[in-house]
Amino acid sequence: MSPQTLAEFAQAAERRLDPAVWAWLSGGAGNEHTLRANVQAWQRLPLWPRMLKPLVGGHTRIHLAGRELVHPILLAPVALQQLVHPDGEWASALAAAAQGAGFILSTQSSVALERVAEAVLADPGRGPLWFQLYWQADRGFNQALAQRAEAAGYEAIVLTVDAPVQGVRDRERQAGFALPAGVRVVHLQDAPATPHADGTYCAGIPAAAPTWDDVAWLQAHTQLPVWLKGVLHPLDARQARQLNVAGLIVSNHGGRTLDGAPATAAALPLVRAAVGDGLPLVVDGGIRRGTDVLKAIALGADAVAIGRPMLWALAAGGAQGVARLIRLLRDELEMALALTGCRTLADVNPGLLAPAAGPPGNAP
Amino acid sequence: MSPQTLAEFAQAAERRLDPAVWAWLSGGAGNEHTLRANVQAWQRLPLWPRMLKPLVGGHTRIHLAGRELVHPILLAPVALQQLVHPDGEWASALAAAAQGAGFILSTQSSVALERVAEAVLADPGRGPLWFQLYWQADRGFNQALAQRAEAAGYEAIVLTVDAPVQGVRDRERQAGFALPAGVRVVHLQDAPATPHADGTYCAGIPAAAPTWDDVAWLQAHTQLPVWLKGVLHPLDARQARQLNVAGLIVSNHGGRTLDGAPATAAALPLVRAAVGDGLPLVVDGGIRRGTDVLKAIALGADAVAIGRPMLWALAAGGAQGVARLIRLLRDELEMALALTGCRTLADVNPGLLAPAAGPPGNAP
Amino acid sequence: MSPQTLAEFAQAAERRLDPAVWAWLSGGAGNEHTLRANVQAWQRLPLWPRMLKPLVGGHTRIHLAGRELVHPILLAPVALQQLVHPDGEWASALAAAAQGAGFILSTQSSVALERVAEAVLADPGRGPLWFQLYWQADRGFNQALAQRAEAAGYEAIVLTVDAPVQGVRDRERQAGFALPAGVRVVHLQDAPATPHADGTYCAGIPAAAPTWDDVAWLQAHTQLPVWLKGVLHPLDARQARQLNVAGLIVSNHGGRTLDGAPATAAALPLVRAAVGDGLPLVVDGGIRRGTDVLKAIALGADAVAIGRPMLWALAAGGAQGVARLIRLLRDELEMALALTGCRTLADVNPGLLAPAAGPPGNAP
Amino acid sequence: MSPQTLAEFAQAAERRLDPAVWAWLSGGAGNEHTLRANVQAWQRLPLWPRMLKPLVGGHTRIHLAGRELVHPILLAPVALQQLVHPDGEWASALAAAAQGAGFILSTQSSVALERVAEAVLADPGRGPLWFQLYWQADRGFNQALAQRAEAAGYEAIVLTVDAPVQGVRDRERQAGFALPAGVRVVHLQDAPATPHADGTYCAGIPAAAPTWDDVAWLQAHTQLPVWLKGVLHPLDARQARQLNVAGLIVSNHGGRTLDGAPATAAALPLVRAAVGDGLPLVVDGGIRRGTDVLKAIALGADAVAIGRPMLWALAAGGAQGVARLIRLLRDELEMALALTGCRTLADVNPGLLAPAAGPPGNAP
Repeated sequence: MSPQTLAEFAQAAERRLDPAVWAWLSGGAGNEHTLRANVQAWQRLPLWPRMLKPLVGGHTRIHLAGRELVHPILLAPVALQQLVHPDGEWASALAAAAQGAGFILSTQSSVALERVAEAVLADPGRGPLWFQLYWQADRGFNQALAQRAEAAGYEAIVLTVDAPVQGVRDRERQAGFALPAGVRVVHLQDAPATPHADGTYCAGIPAAAPTWDDVAWLQAHTQLPVWLKGVLHPLDARQARQLNVAGLIVSNHGGRTLDGAPATAAALPLVRAAVGDGLPLVVDGGIRRGTDVLKAIALGADAVAIGRPMLWALAAGGAQGVARLIRLLRDELEMALALTGCRTLADVNPGLLAPAAGPPGNAP
Repeated sequence: MSPQTLAEFAQAAERRLDPAVWAWLSGGAGNEHTLRANVQAWQRLPLWPRMLKPLVGGHTRIHLAGRELVHPILLAPVALQQLVHPDGEWASALAAAAQGAGFILSTQSSVALERVAEAVLADPGRGPLWFQLYWQADRGFNQALAQRAEAAGYEAIVLTVDAPVQGVRDRERQAGFALPAGVRVVHLQDAPATPHADGTYCAGIPAAAPTWDDVAWLQAHTQLPVWLKGVLHPLDARQARQLNVAGLIVSNHGGRTLDGAPATAAALPLVRAAVGDGLPLVVDGGIRRGTDVLKAIALGADAVAIGRPMLWALAAGGAQGVARLIRLLRDELEMALALTGCRTLADVNPGLLAPAAGPPGNAP
Repeated sequence: MSPQTLAEFAQAAERRLDPAVWAWLSGGAGNEHTLRANVQAWQRLPLWPRMLKPLVGGHTRIHLAGRELVHPILLAPVALQQLVHPDGEWASALAAAAQGAGFILSTQSSVALERVAEAVLADPGRGPLWFQLYWQADRGFNQALAQRAEAAGYEAIVLTVDAPVQGVRDRERQAGFALPAGVRVVHLQDAPATPHADGTYCAGIPAAAPTWDDVAWLQAHTQLPVWLKGVLHPLDARQARQLNVAGLIVSNHGGRTLDGAPATAAALPLVRAAVGDGLPLVVDGGIRRGTDVLKAIALGADAVAIGRPMLWALAAGGAQGVARLIRLLRDELEMALALTGCRTLADVNPGLLAPAAGPPGNAP
Repeated sequence: MSPQTLAEFAQAAERRLDPAVWAWLSGGAGNEHTLRANVQAWQRLPLWPRMLKPLVGGHTRIHLAGRELVHPILLAPVALQQLVHPDGEWASALAAAAQGAGFILSTQSSVALERVAEAVLADPGRGPLWFQLYWQADRGFNQALAQRAEAAGYEAIVLTVDAPVQGVRDRERQAGFALPAGVRVVHLQDAPATPHADGTYCAGIPAAAPTWDDVAWLQAHTQLPVWLKGVLHPLDARQARQLNVAGLIVSNHGGRTLDGAPATAAALPLVRAAVGDGLPLVVDGGIRRGTDVLKAIALGADAVAIGRPMLWALAAGGAQGVARLIRLLRDELEMALALTGCRTLADVNPGLLAPAAGPPGNAP
């Protein structure tokens, strides 16, 4: 029976995957509080139904990064997708394009960025195509990688800022996860090694971790708009806005770096309040239902990104699985729109999460 | 052993029913948060006992829709009751009449409305008899159906407004639920098909979903009072009051449409505050004990309706089962009245849910 | 191995008792929310340790009803104690006297009140001996019963006011509980039958339920001080104070009447605030640890009563078991006193439940 | 597979230890609410990641008690460590010294304090070495013990103030825990017996429990700085400050004395607020992750101490196990620092636990 919900895709993937790969894919940092909180926070937000509003002409279109998209769902950058399917990122990207979803390729892709770009750019109905950058200690290497992405047709650089160290990933370690032969990070084979000092983390980390200065440097050394991915604290969001970044991906790395970090659903409204209205915000982490997408929009997001579910669908059915997953989530979003009395995403507002008090006798 | 609580009727029903039918009956939308919240919200409300008040002459009578009823329990409109018992809606309605309970017949009845009316109207002790309407794209069809109900003796039209689309019903789909041969929606066999456009939900929904204009149109084209069922947001309730509807059924469709919708116990006091005192309110969703009924009255309801429990009892014992269930719930309500020091439902007040602070030294 | 905690007495009792009797003893009303809440509410209250205070000369003595007691633990009135041990109330009363605990005999005793009194009064170290009264429809019968208790040496009448009807006791009914041959309520064999009317609860209840007028009548027709048992709402407590009752037992009948009633730990501070300082308050319901006793005192109780634990100990070890249980609870109370820096119960105060804010630099 | 987290050390220890010893080590007082709360309170505190800050030159150094330490982790005083490993306290102390961690030896050590001191003092990279004192009824015995510790090289006396009585330790009693032959408290063999009176706790306790006067007396009769261990209530902390103690260990004895005592994570910020900035605070209880250490610093602690985890590691791997455990926790702390944008512990602040509101447009 074909999966009909994101959760069913997860079940199908777990059945197919090696347990160690499943642990790598499913696990989070530490005791996985943030991993669980991401999912629960969306689900615990109440959503008020609204009635009897005219729904004719409804749609899910949004404007993002200067384009009109048919719906607000993007595929998040996830490393090494050949771990779950031989077609890897090529298949995910193809599915995204077919469904009009934006696609963000990870630096740690197992498929070359040019091959992915080729698959996406051939589809006239495609969404945005962005390249995610893990900052490397050698600035020049970053610039070269950004230029390579630009040359291939990528439309933005998404700099990940929430992972100066890898998190404490107990689940994948306990499962004995190791990279199988034949799967590798294709873009970092030539990256200069990060210098290490005395073996402590404090000594080793800073050599490779990006700083606000590096962001400004990157902006100055690429033609592409620069997004930051992994911003959670409202003060960091405000700082980013002052640098005129193209947008933010509000994220806690899917709960894989700092355990205890707040759920993205908790951080999102604070970030929106901190940056004001103009700056585009994408949010990821725990989006599993169309109602979650609607709640994200209500809390101030322009769009959402999904990570693990994409890999579930890729494992379960390759490109076709990913395409089906995007469509399922979009269908659920459309039903949620109708049930909350919204014709379009522009009608979605915070009042759907808590009933407006309004002056007595005064209906909107 | 004969069931003595609503929960025991559920167990009896589950033992008798096909698992797919049980899944159809028991399931809710999405992850079933609202389904669970409905039941829990009533139970989590504290109820303060009161002592030593005179209880002589106590009763459970209420006034609703211009009639005096012996108790405030109605049977909610539920589709296709022949799925659980061959007598279907006829048996439920007969039991309601025998116990003085109001009965609301669903548009999606598996028994013709005339046959149901005949069973009810023959009983002089019966409660109100109302017809629930699922709006159809063809206005004329709605008018014809309302006229047919009126001709048969129905006393009100209850327009359902919270289901412009069916919810995401994973449980019944996963159980492989399908309509068995011989059970069908008898009133919609001649309904014109809803026009579809491009296959997306947004394009398909609005053609059939009712609007505030349709409510006004319906009021103008039927002699019967029009109730709205499925109102949850206080602003929608206020809008409804401005249209002079006959009353509201505060409902989230038993958690079957929008998952994440607040429990009806949470919405009810906001709705009562929004519409003021005059408008009749019935509430459904998660009522499982006499104390739940009392809490609903304390929060501003005039009466309650029960859906799934009716089907449990119908499955377990046909008309006799449903009659017994109504009586059990009424007995529990009477005990709850006595234990909270209330002679009648008019004595029930919000102070039973939280202790009145009152000025020191000043007993009521 | 001899039980060392109240919970271990429960386990020992469950092993010995017929499952139906265990269900009768353990169950509560409805879904047993109040039953569980009683226990949890004490345990969830934080208790702050205090340090380095002088503890020499410490003790657990209190003054109650004009007497000095060696500790603040009473045995609550529980019906039909021969259900769990052939010695029944006689054994419980004997143990109470031996440990200096107050004893309250139920109207529904399975042992005659005179025989119980004889056992208690012979012990010079005994605590108070009170008689609990379930109001009977015939006022004269109540007076006669009170006089009989007075004649036997009982020192107070405890009128139960929270059970005008028996609660919905699903657990004991589902277990098929029935009175075994040879166990009976010895004091009500001659009570006139309560008149019934039309078979509904509302019609049947009021004939037997006491009212405030009955309280005043009872006070006027007995020499004994009259306590009320089962008061929970602060306004009822204030009303009782106006009648100059001797004291109140803050109780919800062990969660056996109105399910949803607040835990006694939640009601107690509201009752204390409502009646002010002078009126003696005993609290029961869910007391299972010495720290619970201390918390009750901190919230305004003068003493506590225990019900189910007494029956656990009676079932497990007869009079000796009950005596051991009282001593265990007292030992735990003494340890809790030492750990909270209290020399005596007079040092126990609400600040132990929440840290005093106090002006900076100002230690007490 | 070598343990990689504190939880894995616990599993390894449980596999090796006699169940009764495991119960002694793992259990807490009463129903173990405080035991559980200690662990949960740290984990439930959110921790906000911060981004893109310069991390070069980062470290975990702190100043405590006039010394610079390489990290803020101490080993708490735990009794009778030979119960879990033949090398007992000698091994724990050796490991502490090797990892630069402070070590606090219990009065109830199973290894003589001189032998422990010898192991520690030989290591130039060692942390502080303190002696924990359980107050004995005979003041002179306390003085002699303090002098013996001082002579051996201990640098402070840590007076435990939260255990005038042992707690109610059901788990170890139920498991039948008893001291095996060959393991004994070596320092108290000559202690005069505590005088007992009438067998009640209240009568027996005060003879041995220390008071504020005893603290002052001890300060006057030892050259060593005196810390108090077990302070939880802010008023007690303020009182201690007035006595010019050297520092406080905010502790509830690992949940082993007063069940219901607040988690140390809840008490710590109240204590810090009560004593102001100058007084050194160490906190223990439930620290299981590097993020917990960081949260403790953010709430006002100067350092943390770990108890049970030390014994897990000692049981699992002797001195090597303990050394590895300290290093693991330190590594996790360093990762947490990097992920919260802190170069050093001086950058850790309460704003990491809740987002700073800050004036609009004003980035820090």
